[in-house]
Amino acid sequence: MNPNKERILTGDRTTGQLHLGHYVGSLRSRVELQEVHDTYILLADVQALTTHYEQPELIANSVHQVTLDYLAVGIDPDKSTLFIQSMIPEIAELTVIFSMFVTVNALRHNPTIKTEARDRGYTDLYYGFLGYPVSQAADIACCKTTLIPAGEDQIPHVETARKLVRRFNELYAPVFPEPRILTGARLGGLDGVGKMSKSMGNAISLNADPQDVQAKLTKAKTDPARIRRSDPGHPDICPVYAYHQLFRSADTEEIHTACSQGKIGCTDCKRLAGDAVNELLAPFRERRGYYEQRKSQVKELLMEGTRKARRTAKETMLEVREAMGIRYFDL
Amino acid sequence: MNPNKERILTGDRTTGQLHLGHYVGSLRSRVELQEVHDTYILLADVQALTTHYEQPELIANSVHQVTLDYLAVGIDPDKSTLFIQSMIPEIAELTVIFSMFVTVNALRHNPTIKTEARDRGYTDLYYGFLGYPVSQAADIACCKTTLIPAGEDQIPHVETARKLVRRFNELYAPVFPEPRILTGARLGGLDGVGKMSKSMGNAISLNADPQDVQAKLTKAKTDPARIRRSDPGHPDICPVYAYHQLFRSADTEEIHTACSQGKIGCTDCKRLAGDAVNELLAPFRERRGYYEQRKSQVKELLMEGTRKARRTAKETMLEVREAMGIRYFDL
Ligand code: SF4
Ligand code: SF4
Repeated sequence: MNPNKERILTGDRTTGQLHLGHYVGSLRSRVELQEVHDTYILLADVQALTTHYEQPELIANSVHQVTLDYLAVGIDPDKSTLFIQSMIPEIAELTVIFSMFVTVNALRHNPTIKTEARDRGYTDLYYGFLGYPVSQAADIACCKTTLIPAGEDQIPHVETARKLVRRFNELYAPVFPEPRILTGARLGGLDGVGKMSKSMGNAISLNADPQDVQAKLTKAKTDPARIRRSDPGHPDICPVYAYHQLFRSADTEEIHTACSQGKIGCTDCKRLAGDAVNELLAPFRERRGYYEQRKSQVKELLMEGTRKARRTAKETMLEVREAMGIRYFDL
Repeated sequence: MNPNKERILTGDRTTGQLHLGHYVGSLRSRVELQEVHDTYILLADVQALTTHYEQPELIANSVHQVTLDYLAVGIDPDKSTLFIQSMIPEIAELTVIFSMFVTVNALRHNPTIKTEARDRGYTDLYYGFLGYPVSQAADIACCKTTLIPAGEDQIPHVETARKLVRRFNELYAPVFPEPRILTGARLGGLDGVGKMSKSMGNAISLNADPQDVQAKLTKAKTDPARIRRSDPGHPDICPVYAYHQLFRSADTEEIHTACSQGKIGCTDCKRLAGDAVNELLAPFRERRGYYEQRKSQVKELLMEGTRKARRTAKETMLEVREAMGIRYFDL
């Protein structure tokens, strides 16, 4: 085994399908990382409950859809361990233990929790919602993860996880490694406002068909200073240009020049961006189609991944009990 | 099976040994109830962590001591299921699920949490401490309990449990019965201040030896109006008289009269109360001695009870998954 191999944990809340923002922010790097590192990928259905407990059928359906998204972008179940959070009771056990070491106010001051609560219009926070960073710390710790590829909004959560495992290690015994975050790129929304997000309606779903992609791009905001085709544009502030940069490395420079000199129209430019996205998505669609035909194979690989993650988590929890002196007996 | 048989859950935080207050408040009724009802008794070591996470060795030791206390007072392992909370991961799973349905403010307004936080001098509450009523609701629900024999301070917690199971039943499917509380008597502290509590130093431990008992009673507060032996006393406000009432039914009336007429001295009266307590404790000491010699038998019965409780909790959690539509597969 490669001595530089790290244990990675990533994952997504199963509240819908994944979109291009997820791809750029973390899926792309997961596909690369799985070649080198020991990768665990979590279908976070318990965390999904924190915001969607009233729609459990949406969550269960999303577990299937997100699994297809993973397979579509190139997550290889032989290299990555895909598993379902709610099937690992050890995560819940460790969540309960970790919740002893963190105060309500420390959680309230978490900037990502604050932003999310504001965006969702929460005033009185649900106890489970306030504590989801604790549950995330338990995900990380149960797998003894050292590296978390994730978006910047996850920085405070990984910081919480670091504090919690450090506290545990100090109090009882050094059971857990301290995880680090590896942040990915950030894709803005098509409306030029904030990040790409399904709930903001500014996202391109990973299983969008070619017409969808073009239609979404057609409606994208561009440089507001360009009124006529001949007006010189400012690609660096244009949401569409960001797509060229991310998905069309070949002639990015040319488009920059053409836009700056008023030599390309936004309609054409958007179509080129759409083509680039469609080129990226084409093999994803094919792989998705393959797995959509093979439901039982998908279920089987989820079962296998979940079984493996459970073994890992069980071993960790035995060490936790041992460290805390509460391993009275093994049932 | 008796159709009126209820499923009972009681238990204690394992942060030390039990005392006479526990006996009067709930152990005594548990011994009676186990004859009629299906009784589960929880050694709440996870809940103990909410206040004592820095002393895990105390918790593990207390699990053993409290088990001896139970056996000593007459809990019969053939009739009652004794089990260890931390060995039931399903309780943690249900805790995490229930934590989605209750807000931080609702928990903050729980009067027992408020009192305890004040008594312990907590300003910034630990997340796990604030949420222990949620975890208690999960204990109750995992066992599908209908009746909770407990002290009055548990009323708000049982109310929280009722709300949580009702919410679950409404949201998903009617999995849980609604529990009711059955409150017991309350024994004041020997200092005449508040309730009997180990941390207040005003308690008689269930395994106190006869001299201990007499010594504790000697130091007890009495009617402050009695200076001389011939002064008439007010037994109804005397902490010692409460012991006569609770433990010495035979001549309670006579003592009341003698005290009121200044015909008995407090020293003699305390000795009589001590004798009554010692008479109660004598068979407890004997049974405790028996089990102290049989460590492996005690461990075995805890394992058996825990195994049984785990089977019950697992069945419940399968129903929970089914109701929520997240029973993807069984591992
Ligand atoms: S030409 Fe392209 S980069 Fe320039 S403003 Fe229009 S869409 Fe944006
Ligand atoms: S005689 Fe007994 S009941 Fe009366 S004040 Fe003294 S201790 Fe209390």
